[in-house]
Amino acid sequence: MERLPGFRDFYPEPLPQPGLWSANARQYIFNTWRSLARRYGFHEYDGPPLEPLELFTTKSGEEIVGQLYHFTDKSERQVSLRPEMTPTLARMIAACERGYKKPFKWFALPQLFRYERQQKGRLREHFQFNADIVGEKDPAADAELIALLIDTLRSFGLTHEDFVIRLSSRNAWQVFFRHRHGAATQEYAFYQIIDKLEREAPEQSNEKLERLGFSLAEVSSFIAQGEPTAELTAILANLAARGLRDYVKVDYHVIRGLAYYTGVVFEAFDRKGEFRAIAGGGRYDNLVKLISQGRVDLPALGFGMGDVVLLELLRARALLPKFTAALDVFCLVEDENLRVEFLKVIHDLRAAGLAVDYSLTAAKPDRQFKRAQELNATYTLKLERDPAGMLLARIKNLEARQESVVLPAEVVTWLKGRQGQEGFRGDPAKA
Amino acid sequence: MERLPGFRDFYPEPLPQPGLWSANARQYIFNTWRSLARRYGFHEYDGPPLEPLELFTTKSGEEIVGQLYHFTDKSERQVSLRPEMTPTLARMIAACERGYKKPFKWFALPQLFRYERQQKGRLREHFQFNADIVGEKDPAADAELIALLIDTLRSFGLTHEDFVIRLSSRNAWQVFFRHRHGAATQEYAFYQIIDKLEREAPEQSNEKLERLGFSLAEVSSFIAQGEPTAELTAILANLAARGLRDYVKVDYHVIRGLAYYTGVVFEAFDRKGEFRAIAGGGRYDNLVKLISQGRVDLPALGFGMGDVVLLELLRARALLPKFTAALDVFCLVEDENLRVEFLKVIHDLRAAGLAVDYSLTAAKPDRQFKRAQELNATYTLKLERDPAGMLLARIKNLEARQESVVLPAEVVTWLKGRQGQEGFRGDPAKA
Repeated sequence: MERLPGFRDFYPEPLPQPGLWSANARQYIFNTWRSLARRYGFHEYDGPPLEPLELFTTKSGEEIVGQLYHFTDKSERQVSLRPEMTPTLARMIAACERGYKKPFKWFALPQLFRYERQQKGRLREHFQFNADIVGEKDPAADAELIALLIDTLRSFGLTHEDFVIRLSSRNAWQVFFRHRHGAATQEYAFYQIIDKLEREAPEQSNEKLERLGFSLAEVSSFIAQGEPTAELTAILANLAARGLRDYVKVDYHVIRGLAYYTGVVFEAFDRKGEFRAIAGGGRYDNLVKLISQGRVDLPALGFGMGDVVLLELLRARALLPKFTAALDVFCLVEDENLRVEFLKVIHDLRAAGLAVDYSLTAAKPDRQFKRAQELNATYTLKLERDPAGMLLARIKNLEARQESVVLPAEVVTWLKGRQGQEGFRGDPAKA
Repeated sequence: MERLPGFRDFYPEPLPQPGLWSANARQYIFNTWRSLARRYGFHEYDGPPLEPLELFTTKSGEEIVGQLYHFTDKSERQVSLRPEMTPTLARMIAACERGYKKPFKWFALPQLFRYERQQKGRLREHFQFNADIVGEKDPAADAELIALLIDTLRSFGLTHEDFVIRLSSRNAWQVFFRHRHGAATQEYAFYQIIDKLEREAPEQSNEKLERLGFSLAEVSSFIAQGEPTAELTAILANLAARGLRDYVKVDYHVIRGLAYYTGVVFEAFDRKGEFRAIAGGGRYDNLVKLISQGRVDLPALGFGMGDVVLLELLRARALLPKFTAALDVFCLVEDENLRVEFLKVIHDLRAAGLAVDYSLTAAKPDRQFKRAQELNATYTLKLERDPAGMLLARIKNLEARQESVVLPAEVVTWLKGRQGQEGFRGDPAKA
C-alpha cells in the first residue's frame, strides 16, 4: 500500500536509500526555527489543521477552493485542510485580543496542504515557519520581522552571498498607479501584471499594461529607479543599525500575488536564482478586521518560510549537518548471566538522562559491538566479574579508545561527570 | 468565525482566560516524550496526516469508516485523516525494512483525528506518543516498551501511587477459551465481551457469555486468579530488574477491543480511576504482514499515549509546571536618540543565542519596565551616556535586584558568562 502522491514520509537517519525524507533533518529545521523565534521574543501558537472552508474563502475568495483539500464532514460542515496559517492566526487573535499585550509577536510551524495538479517533485504539503507581528503599524515592526527572517536563514549557515531579501511596497506601486490616474477598479489587476513581469514575455506584459493605460517602459523605468518610499527607508536604516543592510535590496518587481497584502512586501531568494522563493511575506493590515467581521481591527504583518525549498537550498550548499543516532551508551551484554544486573544499570543511566541502547536478546559479542558503532555510540559499557567475584563496569570511549573500570553503582556519576565533554550528547529536552 | 467543534487552538502563556489550551504545555509534553524516547534509543519518524482510506479499512475493517474524517479527493482517491499511527508505521517499515537493522525502535508524535458524535469535552483530535518495537518476538521487547511507558509517566512527576500498568495477554484468554472448547469463529466475539466486563452490568455480560457456552463465574474466577503466563512472568522479572515492579500488575480484565492485537496487551490507568486510560498498547504480530500484503512478516508491538488524558491527569495532580515567557533580556529604550545603538546590542545578544525583546516604538519608561516584568525577563538592559559622553550599558537582574554597568561591546560576554546561573534560560535548541 502506497502513501498519497505529493505527501512525505519522514524516516530516521541514517537513511537506507536515496530519495527518502529525513525525520532528523525536519527536526533540525524545526529546532532552528523555534530557537530563532524564541531569541526574537516570539511566542508559539497553533491551530487545527482542519478549519471551516469559509475561513479561507473569506480571505482569498471562492477561486481558492480549486486548490484546497476540502470536503463535507459528517455534520454537513464545509471543511478544509489549511492551505496557509494566516486566517487561523487572525481568527485566534480576534478571539483573544484583549487578553494579550500588543503587539503580538507570534509564530507557528504548521503543516499546510494544497491540492495542485501533480508535477514532478511538486509536493501537496509542506511545513512552514510562520512569524507574525500584530498590532503595530510602525515600520519598526517590519524591520524586526525581516531581521528575524534574515537571522533564521543565517543560522542555517547561509550568508549574504547565498540569499537576498527583495524588499518592496504596494504603497509605492499605489502612488505610481494613482499618480498616473489608473482606475481604482483596475488596481489589483495592475498588481497582478507586475507580479508576473519576471515570468512573462515583455510583449505580453506590455500588451496587458497598455490595456490599463500604462506602458512596460514606464513601469520598467520605475523599477530600475527603485526609489525607496519613506517606510522602506526607515526599514533599511533599522536593518543597517543591526548590521543586516547587506541582506536587503529594494526591488519593486516583488509585489506578491495575494490580494490581501496592503503595504510592505518582501521575498527571500537565493542569489543564484536556482530555487523558488525561500520565504515571502508582508503587511496585511485589513485581514484581522475581515476575519473578525469588523469586530477587531489591528495592523499586521508576517512571513512564511517553507521547509521544502529551504532543504533543497541547504543541501545544494552542503549546509545540512550529518545526522547521527546520538546514542550516549551502548551496553554490551556478553554474559547472559549478568543481564539482570545490566537492566538495572541501563535503567539508572536512562533515569540520569543518558540515551542508552543494548541488544534485547542474546547476540554474539562482535555483532553487538558492530551495532554500537552503527548507532554511533559515544561509549560502550560491559559488566564483568573480577576473580574475587566482584561486579565491575568497563566503560570504553569509542572515539578516544580509552577504557575505564568502575563499580556499577558509580557508572552514572562517572559518565555524568564527563557530560559536555567527549562528544556527549546530553539531553536536549532538559537543557 | 469559529473553529470546528472538537478541535483545539493552542495559545501562548500566560493564558488570558480559562478554558484555553496552552501551546507551552503542549511543547512541554512533546519535549518530555521526545526526551524519554531518545533515552530509550527510539528513533523518530512521521508519515502524512492524510492517507489512503484503504490503509485503515485493511487494518480495522469497513466499520471504522463511520469514525473517520474521510473524503474523495480531486483525483477521485478515497482518502482519510489518520485516526491512528500504526498502519502508517507498518506501511513505512514494509517499504524500507531491509535498510534498517532489526529490531526497529521507532516513535512518532502524530496528531490523530476521529469523527465522534460530539459529547461535552470530547475532542475529535489529539496528539499521541506512539512508540513501537518491530522485529523482535521475545518478551524482552515487551518489557523494554513497557519500561519506556512507565518512565515517560514518571518523568512527568507521576509515581506508582498515581498510576499502574494493567498487564494482560490475549494468549492467556486464548488458552482459557480453547481449553473450554470455545468455537474458533466466536473467539473474537468472546474477547469483545471480556473487553466490556467492567462497563456492563454483570447480568448482561453473563447472558452474552452463556450464549457462547461460558459463565461469568468461571471468567471472573480466571481473572481473580490472575496466574501470569510464561511471557508475562518474563516481562515482570525484566521490569523488576529495572526497579519497576511496583508499577505493574497482571489484570486479565484488559484485553483491548481492537481486533489486531495478538499477545501481550496493557493499559496505563490512574490509581484513583478518575480518568480514561492514559495509554494502551500490545503486540500486533500480524499487522505488518497484513499491510504489506504478505511481503514483509515481522512481529511488532507498540503503545499510544494521548495528550488530552495526560494533561487532565497532570493538572489534577498539580504536576504541570508554571510556564513563563522565558525571556533573557528586555531592553529598556528610554532615550530614542540611542535606538540605533540599541538595535546593534539587541542584535548581538540574539546572535549569541539569548532571547531578547524590547518596545518596537517609543513608550514611557514605566510601561516598558512593566512589560519586562510581564514577560518575566531575567535582565533588563539600558543604554546611557556618562558625563563624558561615553556609551554604557546598565544591566539589572530583576530577581536579585542587582545592577552592573559595562561597556556595550562587553554586554554579550558579560551575560554569556552568567548563563546557566541566575535563572538564565539559554537556548534549548542549541543544547
